[in-house]
Amino acid sequence: MKSIALNDLEKLTSSILKGLGYPEKQAEITAKVLVEADARGIPSHGVARLAFYRNNIKGGFAFPENEPETVFETPLSVVVDGHSGIGPYIAQKAMEKCIEKAEKSGAAFASVRNSNHFGIAGYWAEMAANRDMIGMAFTNTRKCGIATYGRERLLGTNPIAFAFPTSEKEPFLLDMATTTVAHGKIEVYDRRDREMPLGWAVDENGQGTTDAHRIEELFATHDSLGAQLFLGGEGELLGGHKGYGLGLMVELLSSALSLGRWSKQTFEGEGAGITHFFGVISLDLFGTGEKIRDHAASILEEIRQSEKTVDQERIYIHGEKEAECRKRALDHGISIDEATWSLLDELSCEFGIDL
Amino acid sequence: MKSIALNDLEKLTSSILKGLGYPEKQAEITAKVLVEADARGIPSHGVARLAFYRNNIKGGFAFPENEPETVFETPLSVVVDGHSGIGPYIAQKAMEKCIEKAEKSGAAFASVRNSNHFGIAGYWAEMAANRDMIGMAFTNTRKCGIATYGRERLLGTNPIAFAFPTSEKEPFLLDMATTTVAHGKIEVYDRRDREMPLGWAVDENGQGTTDAHRIEELFATHDSLGAQLFLGGEGELLGGHKGYGLGLMVELLSSALSLGRWSKQTFEGEGAGITHFFGVISLDLFGTGEKIRDHAASILEEIRQSEKTVDQERIYIHGEKEAECRKRALDHGISIDEATWSLLDELSCEFGIDL
Repeated sequence: MKSIALNDLEKLTSSILKGLGYPEKQAEITAKVLVEADARGIPSHGVARLAFYRNNIKGGFAFPENEPETVFETPLSVVVDGHSGIGPYIAQKAMEKCIEKAEKSGAAFASVRNSNHFGIAGYWAEMAANRDMIGMAFTNTRKCGIATYGRERLLGTNPIAFAFPTSEKEPFLLDMATTTVAHGKIEVYDRRDREMPLGWAVDENGQGTTDAHRIEELFATHDSLGAQLFLGGEGELLGGHKGYGLGLMVELLSSALSLGRWSKQTFEGEGAGITHFFGVISLDLFGTGEKIRDHAASILEEIRQSEKTVDQERIYIHGEKEAECRKRALDHGISIDEATWSLLDELSCEFGIDL
Repeated sequence: MKSIALNDLEKLTSSILKGLGYPEKQAEITAKVLVEADARGIPSHGVARLAFYRNNIKGGFAFPENEPETVFETPLSVVVDGHSGIGPYIAQKAMEKCIEKAEKSGAAFASVRNSNHFGIAGYWAEMAANRDMIGMAFTNTRKCGIATYGRERLLGTNPIAFAFPTSEKEPFLLDMATTTVAHGKIEVYDRRDREMPLGWAVDENGQGTTDAHRIEELFATHDSLGAQLFLGGEGELLGGHKGYGLGLMVELLSSALSLGRWSKQTFEGEGAGITHFFGVISLDLFGTGEKIRDHAASILEEIRQSEKTVDQERIYIHGEKEAECRKRALDHGISIDEATWSLLDELSCEFGIDL
């Protein structure tokens, strides 16, 4: 592991993205969101993604200079065609518009089609919470998840991000794939030759497996067999049909509302075709924001202070771990693993950047 | 099992509720929602709940004649104090207001405090979908769920209901407790002397248990120990922290926004203090509703037609099972189990109703 200051990593990432053909603004916001993920302890969505982003350009899935276009608008909403531009740049514009409209109207929504990977969903939901409003961000993704009782990879990891402002320093920030785990976890089990728990994935027959090698092999070689399970796992006994339902809810909000592609159709033909949905709701719709934020904080604090299970010392509120990790990163730098460091080194060389 | 026509069961239930002191309108809507649950194959929320509703009146948690009051209102929102009146009556008024406002403004939300059990959450979300709008309904409940790594019963089963209109006959309708299972399932395992799967509940130490007897005993005798787990189960390996996060999201939307009680404080003192949150979003905010509904239908149909796992013949879309069950109930009557029939018999005798 090497350590690097947050600002330095952001500058480096931005320079690499410019090398890849990103215009200034696109490079800046993308670098910010990637580095935020590393700072928050979510390296699966951090600068390691630069390899994926490079492939997206080479593969004709992302066109860095393409500007998003507003194709429909009301005082409460905007529909955006991303024209296969850069995900975080499109997401930022959409969320900024939601916030602006919600400040006037009380609530606003953005439906986005033909976009690309937008980084951590929580970043966008949090933008609203930082303005004392409720924020939501959803997206579909490359297909990897399976319907309950299905055998084909159809849906994405389809994350839900929900931010609720409180009078505490950090908002409540839930940011979760609706699949049991992010795909990166299966990759780690594959590399380390470990058996996965049942409930993460199914094999080519649509049946639960603990064999991470098999899943990685299927993802690499087969177009639709071998898939991740949604929260609750296989079948209905532990609620797998609920997780699948949440994944499908995200799919409908993202792809159906925007008339864009659904997860099964992403990364087919030109452009990745990723779709998003954003929402912002002002606390002013419900009375005095300050009272609501205080009440929320008192509920969260009572949960924190409640009794712990025998072998645990702490109950976490969503967003806390990441906020603490970010503080450590600001104080002591961000830890980057060897493989990611090699990637940064390679890309820096390629574009003549001084690492 | 006995069978009874849907209309007859609704009339009977309404008469019993009037016997319990419900005014005409409160009795009608409550009977409708309870019987709908039985018709859809969700007997845990059906007329068997009459025992619970009777206890709520005797216990001073519900006051059938109390009218809800609008305490705050904007073109996009309403905040309602239920004054401990009847849950379905309050929910109906709140959702009707949301629909009316959303038809004018494009979206609307209702935050409700001091209410009571409102029946199946899906009923309220579906009201919006029946008007070709997106519908959402959330509620907290009596405490029964536990925070990840916690040991005290703090949160409710905190359901999420989400309805999305499509050009198919029935909307997409997700209606799920954020806990792994409804409490009624644990009761069944207790009665049948069966071991529960791990992932449903924790014992007095906050550790996973398969002993349904122990959980039922703890719920009956202890105020806060012994609890249900959220979707994803114990710890973080299968995503239990995500289910807990969804439960907490519902808690904040319901109780924090309304300045009402949170699950831990319900059924303490006068009134149950249940809180709800409703939302309606018009498809008109995103362009042509018809195109969006068609696109949604095409995604759902492709999922249905996709390959099944080796031992299954069908992939369900959320709401389908319930809609088909309801159709059977309309054609052949609703099946009522012996215990529930005895309850109906007892209540009919008490109020001199001809069963």
